[in-house]
Amino acid sequence: MLSDLDSLMRSRELDAIVVPMHEAMHPSFRWLTRGAKVTRGYAIKRIDRDPVLITYPMERDEAAATGLEVRIESSTTEDYGEFYDSALRGLGIAGTIAFFGNAPLHLYHGVFEALASRGWKLHRANGEDLIQLARKRKDAHEIAAIRSVGERTELVVDRVREVLREVAIRGDAVTYRGESLTIGMLKQLVSSEVARLGMIEDHETILSQGADAAVPHSRGDARAPVRPSSPIVLDIFPADKTSGYFFDMTRTFCIGPIPDALREMHAQVFTAFTRARDAMRPGTPASSYQALVCDYFESLGHATTRSNPATTTGYVHGLGHGVGLDIHEKPSFQLTPSNRDLVEEGDIVTIEPGLYDPARGLGVRIEDTFVVVHDRVETMCRGGYELEP
Amino acid sequence: MLSDLDSLMRSRELDAIVVPMHEAMHPSFRWLTRGAKVTRGYAIKRIDRDPVLITYPMERDEAAATGLEVRIESSTTEDYGEFYDSALRGLGIAGTIAFFGNAPLHLYHGVFEALASRGWKLHRANGEDLIQLARKRKDAHEIAAIRSVGERTELVVDRVREVLREVAIRGDAVTYRGESLTIGMLKQLVSSEVARLGMIEDHETILSQGADAAVPHSRGDARAPVRPSSPIVLDIFPADKTSGYFFDMTRTFCIGPIPDALREMHAQVFTAFTRARDAMRPGTPASSYQALVCDYFESLGHATTRSNPATTTGYVHGLGHGVGLDIHEKPSFQLTPSNRDLVEEGDIVTIEPGLYDPARGLGVRIEDTFVVVHDRVETMCRGGYELEP
Repeated sequence: MLSDLDSLMRSRELDAIVVPMHEAMHPSFRWLTRGAKVTRGYAIKRIDRDPVLITYPMERDEAAATGLEVRIESSTTEDYGEFYDSALRGLGIAGTIAFFGNAPLHLYHGVFEALASRGWKLHRANGEDLIQLARKRKDAHEIAAIRSVGERTELVVDRVREVLREVAIRGDAVTYRGESLTIGMLKQLVSSEVARLGMIEDHETILSQGADAAVPHSRGDARAPVRPSSPIVLDIFPADKTSGYFFDMTRTFCIGPIPDALREMHAQVFTAFTRARDAMRPGTPASSYQALVCDYFESLGHATTRSNPATTTGYVHGLGHGVGLDIHEKPSFQLTPSNRDLVEEGDIVTIEPGLYDPARGLGVRIEDTFVVVHDRVETMCRGGYELEP
Repeated sequence: MLSDLDSLMRSRELDAIVVPMHEAMHPSFRWLTRGAKVTRGYAIKRIDRDPVLITYPMERDEAAATGLEVRIESSTTEDYGEFYDSALRGLGIAGTIAFFGNAPLHLYHGVFEALASRGWKLHRANGEDLIQLARKRKDAHEIAAIRSVGERTELVVDRVREVLREVAIRGDAVTYRGESLTIGMLKQLVSSEVARLGMIEDHETILSQGADAAVPHSRGDARAPVRPSSPIVLDIFPADKTSGYFFDMTRTFCIGPIPDALREMHAQVFTAFTRARDAMRPGTPASSYQALVCDYFESLGHATTRSNPATTTGYVHGLGHGVGLDIHEKPSFQLTPSNRDLVEEGDIVTIEPGLYDPARGLGVRIEDTFVVVHDRVETMCRGGYELEP
């Protein structure tokens, strides 16, 4: 929330924050400018005041559409030290400034030093992204935007279920309406439905099967025929085309006879999922839920990245992450000494435990997106966690 | 081309280049890693050797799929000075290094100084992006990828033409198959077709009409009903979902009776387009074609950003740009003293002159994507430049 940013700026004694945008839209710029569709610009946030957007003449309509105060720069610069010095002075800013967001390294090498030599006091972030911290708790408008993406994401998952329910299986061969069904055909269905429902696939949807499903971030092999008795992991995280907000959910399906080992793995993952979900409360360390799930999986004899950081078998990733204009936001659930992120009211988080066994071609992950309310977390999904599509 | 990067590194006396990637995929990382679908990683290019990809255990399959040498880091760091020092030494690198690509400012503040204090010699880029320069000339594989996006982009434009040809016009009311036609319906059609054809809309397609069309980067108003006798600018620049290569083309349409002022504006823009196209040769300064088009438009009495940098009426933007994994690449056609970009064989460029008159609600732009061959430029489009859809 923007009000959280003012508090953060006050505690760090910052007078202004600059978030530049050079072609590549970064969520921090998008958030601060209320989604300005410009191709280059600079968002400047003064403490306790609304952001100002500096951009170029061609972008003036989209800049004005944000409702923010807009300053138009008619010439482009190659000396960003001079540019920022003049822009900041033009806005009456004095004191300490900080830069956040992503920027091209070849343009910003030495810019902070140049500003310092012109008398500016630069905040040293030391890895702390104040915009990311302020974006952590969502306001009602953001929660509604994410809920809307969630409802449409469920419709896409429904379509995949429908196809998987309708297949004909003969031996290892799987056909859908007479055609051999491939992972690529399911991926294509997901892509069309995502677009039809006003969303974008910012990253490729994970639709992976068997040995691919056993590697958490494998996107899956489009040419692979869909097989019976093998896990099919659908991890889908589209964003709304206009608002830019993401949603994230994962289901693991299996068609045909379900192997016992897969059934058991799925039951264990589902238990981890419900334990983390039912335990989670605002005001508590996010890492404690990663510990809870590691405890559970280790008690069953599985390796985890806590018991063996290099393991690729067992529970090999974090429990979840915040979701917003980035697919991965605060809080972090990482079990590292430096992670002091709390689960807080207003956070939107995923819970997504998984188990992986590359040697046996098995992988299961279950994930919902949740909103953290005053005394618990509420799923934004409809349920339907079974292996049967 | 990668071989151009080696030449550039040699001339700048660089031993290695680092391109980091933190969640937000940057084209320079994508190019150097042949499209690695990882969520975090570091591409390291040593002179005269193939790039190495450093990434994390969960990303190992997608990293291996690139065919590059991969190093897996099992722990994450918060001290990037230490991380790069160790990673570069681990690869046997010594001498001068440079960083390119986009990176989060809160993580990289002070990292170059920290590396310098550990004895590394850091290249000062002063605004020059060597990866962008190396990406300028395309190899046959890249040209084929862009051509493929172009063919599919034309199919999407065809669909918009078909709808515009089929409309019924009564007074100011435009209907398609009995329904009032809005700009939003055309945008939705574009989105679905782009997705169906295996492409993504990385930025929102420009589909703007009348007063919106008079502002080059206005995306258009989805709620606006389509009107007769008004320019409709369709500027479409999708990317292939897998390869990431863009294409860019613009057509200006008008349904119903065409006003004389629009007809004349369109004829002038088309003349500028053909003059620039027919004049363009490899080995010449790109800015000279911006000058050529400014000469022509000014001779007709139009303002240009050369005659008046702040004008919003007349010819208010650059003539074109390179196209590749970024929608805006080298060469630049900007008419600035510092722009010394040449048009070179292997470049893929757009030519896109336009005229704008916000006061009269008129705007026209015509754009093709071209490949620069040894003695001219060849369009990658099919033609069909008329106002009539």
